Amino acid sequence: MSQPQFTRVALIGIGLIGSSLAHVMRARRLAGEIVVSTRSEHTLARAQELGLGDRYHLDAAEAVTGADLVILCVPVGASEQVAKWIAPALAPGAIVTDVGSTKGSVVAQMAPHLPDGVHFIPGHPIAGTEESGPDAGFAELFEDRWCILTPVPDTDAEALARLTAFWEACGSTVETMDPDHHDLVLAIVSHLPHIIAYNIVGTADDLEAVTKSEVIKYSASGFRDFTRLAASDPTMWRDVCLHNKDAILEMLARFSEDLAALQRAIRWGDGEALFDLFTRTRGIRRSIVEAGQDTDAPDFGRHAARPSAGGGQTSD
Amino acid sequence: MSQPQFTRVALIGIGLIGSSLAHVMRARRLAGEIVVSTRSEHTLARAQELGLGDRYHLDAAEAVTGADLVILCVPVGASEQVAKWIAPALAPGAIVTDVGSTKGSVVAQMAPHLPDGVHFIPGHPIAGTEESGPDAGFAELFEDRWCILTPVPDTDAEALARLTAFWEACGSTVETMDPDHHDLVLAIVSHLPHIIAYNIVGTADDLEAVTKSEVIKYSASGFRDFTRLAASDPTMWRDVCLHNKDAILEMLARFSEDLAALQRAIRWGDGEALFDLFTRTRGIRRSIVEAGQDTDAPDFGRHAARPSAGGGQTSD
Repeated sequence: MSQPQFTRVALIGIGLIGSSLAHVMRARRLAGEIVVSTRSEHTLARAQELGLGDRYHLDAAEAVTGADLVILCVPVGASEQVAKWIAPALAPGAIVTDVGSTKGSVVAQMAPHLPDGVHFIPGHPIAGTEESGPDAGFAELFEDRWCILTPVPDTDAEALARLTAFWEACGSTVETMDPDHHDLVLAIVSHLPHIIAYNIVGTADDLEAVTKSEVIKYSASGFRDFTRLAASDPTMWRDVCLHNKDAILEMLARFSEDLAALQRAIRWGDGEALFDLFTRTRGIRRSIVEAGQDTDAPDFGRHAARPSAGGGQTSD
Repeated sequence: MSQPQFTRVALIGIGLIGSSLAHVMRARRLAGEIVVSTRSEHTLARAQELGLGDRYHLDAAEAVTGADLVILCVPVGASEQVAKWIAPALAPGAIVTDVGSTKGSVVAQMAPHLPDGVHFIPGHPIAGTEESGPDAGFAELFEDRWCILTPVPDTDAEALARLTAFWEACGSTVETMDPDHHDLVLAIVSHLPHIIAYNIVGTADDLEAVTKSEVIKYSASGFRDFTRLAASDPTMWRDVCLHNKDAILEMLARFSEDLAALQRAIRWGDGEALFDLFTRTRGIRRSIVEAGQDTDAPDFGRHAARPSAGGGQTSD
């Protein structure tokens, strides 16, 4: 496209998501000008070294001045503070969005502070890796991924269409959803898995009878699959836990209840109950692979050198 | 090597591990003759179609006749039955081993039935994928993986050396360990992760407020990492749960205790406790990658097309 979609895009926060947005906007000419802001001098200097933006500001209010798109890429717990900071400087007609993993809390934190005439459309690209910081970004992060927008009933249709087109230009498919439903869906598909992963890695770390070197040595037998999630950014995940509390506690309660039943089946030798559960769960894996949401290569393709492609899906 | 290590190797059971052993023995000429046995006519016919062995028997006793190496590749719960079946037919001086994921129970099931003059050395290759059945095997499965042998105090040194050399020829590094310690180590690095993965997939499957299609659609945000383990062979994992009960219940109790504490931190908004845990767990991931036990590619390398290799490990 010859004309950038937005004249000036301000990125508030320049971690994995912010820096990936900078890369993709540059690569696909989505912004006339990219303005980068973060409250850490060190991080801002690094962003500048990496050439992620056209201008750099420690002051978020300066950064958003004259921007027609403002994207908050900060831990969700910082949303209110940033909203208060930038509110007086926002241009009329600007679109303000975010990339946070919780949406109800972001709406509650930001909406009261944003001035009339600004289009606030919370968002959440379902994309990420276990890495963080401005060096972690890459232009393809959003390619073939979902991006959920959670407009409110009176959201301006044209603004929504522009933001949707922006995410599509980044490579994503956009869905819209109610903020509360988003928080419930993400609690089960993302928040609970991360919490469980952090927890099991912590449990293993605490053992006395099994050494840490044994855990590491034999981790390929299952444990290592959890460690990827448990290496995610601590600040981001602390904030997710604090800001999607109700949905997470609900999912944790269900998980623990189910685990107690499973534990009981193990204690009392109920092989049939175990077999039934272990069979049922295979179907979901198949559906995820069929939906193109994961690779069907065994072991996530870690064994790249597998010689024969034939028949690997057959089970006895 | 010009001379096969064993004259006749009998594989009892021909799933993922059995068929992978068949492939690697053939590829590296480790066996003069490969004899395949399974109690399922259908599976035996499939093994024959795939050309996995030189001879095929439904009768395990016939299969082990004259074999100098017998490898049980069956769910651990079938160990006693197979031991009773093959005991009268075993050749004096034969080495009998297995590949089961629990060791104390296998020793208890098999040792009483095996005749004097046979060398019983339980084993466990730490290798596998989420697939199962005779089609799932491949020669490289054991390459650069650990294989744990759990000899008893009076195990014949020469027999242990021969079995060690066999697994090394399959590509593995051999460690020896007490059976009970093996069961404790595997309970945390393998059994608990699988049980947790099965459980969370079951919990998600049961939700009413979030549809299954939503779970599948947004699974890349964490959930899908669990589904690989939860797609593992149900019979094998039922047997692991039933036959390593004590160690698994111990690990489950610790996990649940830790999860209750984490849940409490979420409920009461203890951000510091959350941040501390989420920071501590990053170290284990780093150690696993440094030990060569996992790929350091973000997202397990699912995004193969990542453009720049530089700086990806930096965190803010």
